[in-house]
Amino acid sequence: MARGGARPTGEAFAALPVVVDAMGGDRAPGEIVAGARQVAEQTDINVTLVGRPGAMGDTGDLPCIPAAEVIGMDDDPGIGVRKKKDSSLVRAAEAVRDGKAMAMVSAGNTGATMASALLRMGRLPHVIRPAIATPVPNLKQPWPTVLLDCGANAECTAPMLVQFAQMGAAFVRKRYGVDQPRVALLSIGEEKSKGTPLEKETHALLADGSGGPGLEFVGNVEGRDFFDGSADVIITDGFTGNVALKTMEGTLRFLIGALTDILGRPEVKETADALYPHLLPFAASLDPDNTGGAMLLGVDGVCVISHGSSSSVAVVNAITVAHDLAVGGLVEALAAAVTPIAPVE
Amino acid sequence: MARGGARPTGEAFAALPVVVDAMGGDRAPGEIVAGARQVAEQTDINVTLVGRPGAMGDTGDLPCIPAAEVIGMDDDPGIGVRKKKDSSLVRAAEAVRDGKAMAMVSAGNTGATMASALLRMGRLPHVIRPAIATPVPNLKQPWPTVLLDCGANAECTAPMLVQFAQMGAAFVRKRYGVDQPRVALLSIGEEKSKGTPLEKETHALLADGSGGPGLEFVGNVEGRDFFDGSADVIITDGFTGNVALKTMEGTLRFLIGALTDILGRPEVKETADALYPHLLPFAASLDPDNTGGAMLLGVDGVCVISHGSSSSVAVVNAITVAHDLAVGGLVEALAAAVTPIAPVE
Repeated sequence: MARGGARPTGEAFAALPVVVDAMGGDRAPGEIVAGARQVAEQTDINVTLVGRPGAMGDTGDLPCIPAAEVIGMDDDPGIGVRKKKDSSLVRAAEAVRDGKAMAMVSAGNTGATMASALLRMGRLPHVIRPAIATPVPNLKQPWPTVLLDCGANAECTAPMLVQFAQMGAAFVRKRYGVDQPRVALLSIGEEKSKGTPLEKETHALLADGSGGPGLEFVGNVEGRDFFDGSADVIITDGFTGNVALKTMEGTLRFLIGALTDILGRPEVKETADALYPHLLPFAASLDPDNTGGAMLLGVDGVCVISHGSSSSVAVVNAITVAHDLAVGGLVEALAAAVTPIAPVE
Repeated sequence: MARGGARPTGEAFAALPVVVDAMGGDRAPGEIVAGARQVAEQTDINVTLVGRPGAMGDTGDLPCIPAAEVIGMDDDPGIGVRKKKDSSLVRAAEAVRDGKAMAMVSAGNTGATMASALLRMGRLPHVIRPAIATPVPNLKQPWPTVLLDCGANAECTAPMLVQFAQMGAAFVRKRYGVDQPRVALLSIGEEKSKGTPLEKETHALLADGSGGPGLEFVGNVEGRDFFDGSADVIITDGFTGNVALKTMEGTLRFLIGALTDILGRPEVKETADALYPHLLPFAASLDPDNTGGAMLLGVDGVCVISHGSSSSVAVVNAITVAHDLAVGGLVEALAAAVTPIAPVE
């Protein structure tokens, strides 16, 4: 592979830092810098911050790459990346491109993170469009189901979805050690005739083996199947994936809010307090801070997108996952998995 | 209005029965017939069953319209309705069309229920396509948020979505007495630039007042906003709506399943038992049996689609809602609300 000519390999690569966007996220820079420092102090992982000098708070002994600008949560991603060339996000992506970092982590503007990674790192060979992959927890198996695309591409074609299947399977294999990930297509019925032309074409391509001999396509799943462990990877377009993911978040928040209200009633509180030690481990398993964040797949470098309200715990997990996947060869595995896909005739 | 020439009006209409498909649903005919009998025995609502003679169990004193065929849950809706002209679903829709019933209720094959209603009752004037409207409960206001389309049309155009907004608002006004329903568009961000061309065009049409002077468009909402009461009507295409609705169902089932497991542990059970009286009213508020079912809007008659696993309680609610909306003039209100919509130029 001729990609990343400037990129070190072997031990030199493993010694590279993970670059962390200190300016991105609702709780930046405080929680971001705290998480980065914690990783650097407690593990062998090297961490470098990127941000505006003097605006990052106490960065301790961490090395910093200066970036005068910040792309805000409400900035238009495309315009932000084009106009703010000295922003923390653009500089972070450049550090990965230039072989100065093994991976980047940001809890900032998702669209701008994606645009920075795409424009600065570039796509892997054959990749039509990168996709955002997000883990969805379930109770049936110890690893989550990975949903992609969660919003990188509002509009998709069937060949893009087949590549999402290839990338999702390669990611699950690396991230969770699942040998033969089961890949399903999100639709509105199990039959191959269900859905829009996009789902019908994608189903036909995957059923015909267009995803390659190593890809196990298990057919369509529906929205109610996310949590039942019937697939390891679920693919869909970025509009539907984003709606589905946010619907899960909203439903969980609604139900947990209602339960918290009920368990907080004066006449119930004492009883409820006895239950919290039993409920908390489950609640923790759902906390996005503990899952390591979403991953941008298809660019020439590791890019972890932590959620906007990331705490230092989320940042620690995101950096750890980014490091492990970079050293573990995620990018090489993705490059090997993706093939050119011809549309349905 | 020249529709339904054969249809009685006034007191004669109010005396018509609600026809109930005795053969449709996972628990048909037992639970369906039980619910229908309960309504007939305990209220002033007239109920007529439609089904295969001798296969409906004990129908008591209820009048029955015979139908020799059944469209099964797995039958293709289009083929089923075309080939099984003497099916309970087709006969039920014909009873409404012919002025022999005020409304129809089925817990059977959703696609076939829709196809029967569409092909036999026909569309209301100007309606491009009917849509399935489903209530989503929330804790912020006493009435639910209505989501449409929940699966009648996998592919939609912007003018269709504008009509869904018109019909959804008219429905919420009739069903829940909300004077000025707030209508939102489901997308992947609040800005009008977010989403696919369908969302951008629909947003532009609604923001320009194409929905009419009485329609209050409050902008885009995201998947996480379903339960927060920020809109009374949420419109989307039938693919996305179906995925979102089933994602909510799956998420609720996942969380309730996990909680039931935890609260059932031997060391917890005694404490948990004391909480159930507090938890049950909330659980009941989420039970689809209690919400009256989904409604097909845009056809020339009232058609309630109860969920596939409907119990007699669900059937009682569905019949009651169907009756109240038929007598309350839902169809007339929908006909008055829908206008021709020109596409964005």
